[in-house]
Amino acid sequence: MTGTKSEYTACLIVIGNEILSGRTRDANLQYLAGRLNGWGIRLREARVIPDIEETIVETVNRCRRAFDYVFTTGGIGPTHDDITAASVAKAFGVGLVKDPKSFALMAARYETPEEFNESRQKMCFIPDGAVPIENSVSVAPGFQMDNVFVLAGVPSIMRAMADTLQNRLIGGAPVRARALGCHLPEGAVAGGLADIQERWPGIDIGSYPFYREGKFGTSLVLRGTDAAALDAAYAAVADMVTGLGGVPAPEDS
Amino acid sequence: MTGTKSEYTACLIVIGNEILSGRTRDANLQYLAGRLNGWGIRLREARVIPDIEETIVETVNRCRRAFDYVFTTGGIGPTHDDITAASVAKAFGVGLVKDPKSFALMAARYETPEEFNESRQKMCFIPDGAVPIENSVSVAPGFQMDNVFVLAGVPSIMRAMADTLQNRLIGGAPVRARALGCHLPEGAVAGGLADIQERWPGIDIGSYPFYREGKFGTSLVLRGTDAAALDAAYAAVADMVTGLGGVPAPEDS
Repeated sequence: MTGTKSEYTACLIVIGNEILSGRTRDANLQYLAGRLNGWGIRLREARVIPDIEETIVETVNRCRRAFDYVFTTGGIGPTHDDITAASVAKAFGVGLVKDPKSFALMAARYETPEEFNESRQKMCFIPDGAVPIENSVSVAPGFQMDNVFVLAGVPSIMRAMADTLQNRLIGGAPVRARALGCHLPEGAVAGGLADIQERWPGIDIGSYPFYREGKFGTSLVLRGTDAAALDAAYAAVADMVTGLGGVPAPEDS
Repeated sequence: MTGTKSEYTACLIVIGNEILSGRTRDANLQYLAGRLNGWGIRLREARVIPDIEETIVETVNRCRRAFDYVFTTGGIGPTHDDITAASVAKAFGVGLVKDPKSFALMAARYETPEEFNESRQKMCFIPDGAVPIENSVSVAPGFQMDNVFVLAGVPSIMRAMADTLQNRLIGGAPVRARALGCHLPEGAVAGGLADIQERWPGIDIGSYPFYREGKFGTSLVLRGTDAAALDAAYAAVADMVTGLGGVPAPEDS
């Protein structure tokens, strides 16, 4: 849905000791960022924090006041280190209540009371007042509490949940991007690029060195919501590269 | 170097619009976390922030007071969006000064004044009072300012810089880890795992579902600095898995 603000902002809170220990490399930030770009919402910050209640409570409370939307990933499974739902409830000063729909679905999946044990039942409890976020991969829900969206950490489940959110989120114009690569070093394009950035302040121009197929080069990436300005700035960057003896090659942005 | 505190903490600040836009997937957190584990320093938080001076200044100032060490990656190249050195200088209330050694090395590399242009010279300026961090890949230095370590964003350069830091960092006992996998679902091991976590509060036990070779399962990861406690807790986890009809298989941790 499209709103009237000039910019809608989001923060992602990645909850999980396994990311901070280096065991697991986060894959959710990149996916969510891409989705949000398309919905006209800018991911403005991400934080990776450990499975510590006090830290989760404080981070959620700080971020939900600073950004239009907050997303969390991780910590909604059945084990002792899955404390996200309880921590978010605490951040909002409410208790946890059973989500009857997911409880019934899960009770049907596990035939005996031993299988549908306390640990699994825990996954069906969400903060009082939250709206469940269903997922097509597993039964256990995420949830939305005010402007905070609590998603799974497992990438396939996180994606299934994120893909259902478009109708709940109000964004601005989609963020468009164009990019080109050239075999000129960053130090050669830096001056001209700064001039172009000054001429188009509404376009965010980034420069990233690369080493591919035995050659150094630079990727130049332009982002913005104004398609005409984006195209004009892109043309100026391509002209500058050509003027410096480079060959601008369009790239995925 | 080994110090006397029970825990040494670190925060990583990833600076770069390209991570938040989803264009680039960060690779530096995982590498740095592994290095820090070995040096007895725990990565306790990471933040990904945009190339905005005010945000960098505020984040650096907040984090350098909250953690023993702060590392930043990104934003020390020659282009207009490389504002990390200037922003960190501002955070400390100092100006930028020329690092004579890297300036001389770079002047030798680029033969003409046109090649050693203003953009490239910018890379040799570091905050007044900072100690350069050399890198064996490119000439442009990172730097240490008090407890803040400013590293490159390009992974090969970031790694070369990080690898030189061991002698500047005081840590505690190295963080050890052991892990096993089993083809039991998380919901089946959750109860027993919580009991084991309670018995060994000094060991951090994590549980992570996986899907490999067509089978669901759970990885159980134990971390701590006390080798004997780690081994005992690991044995208890393996026994629990066996007791539930699973086969504990050692995994990389």
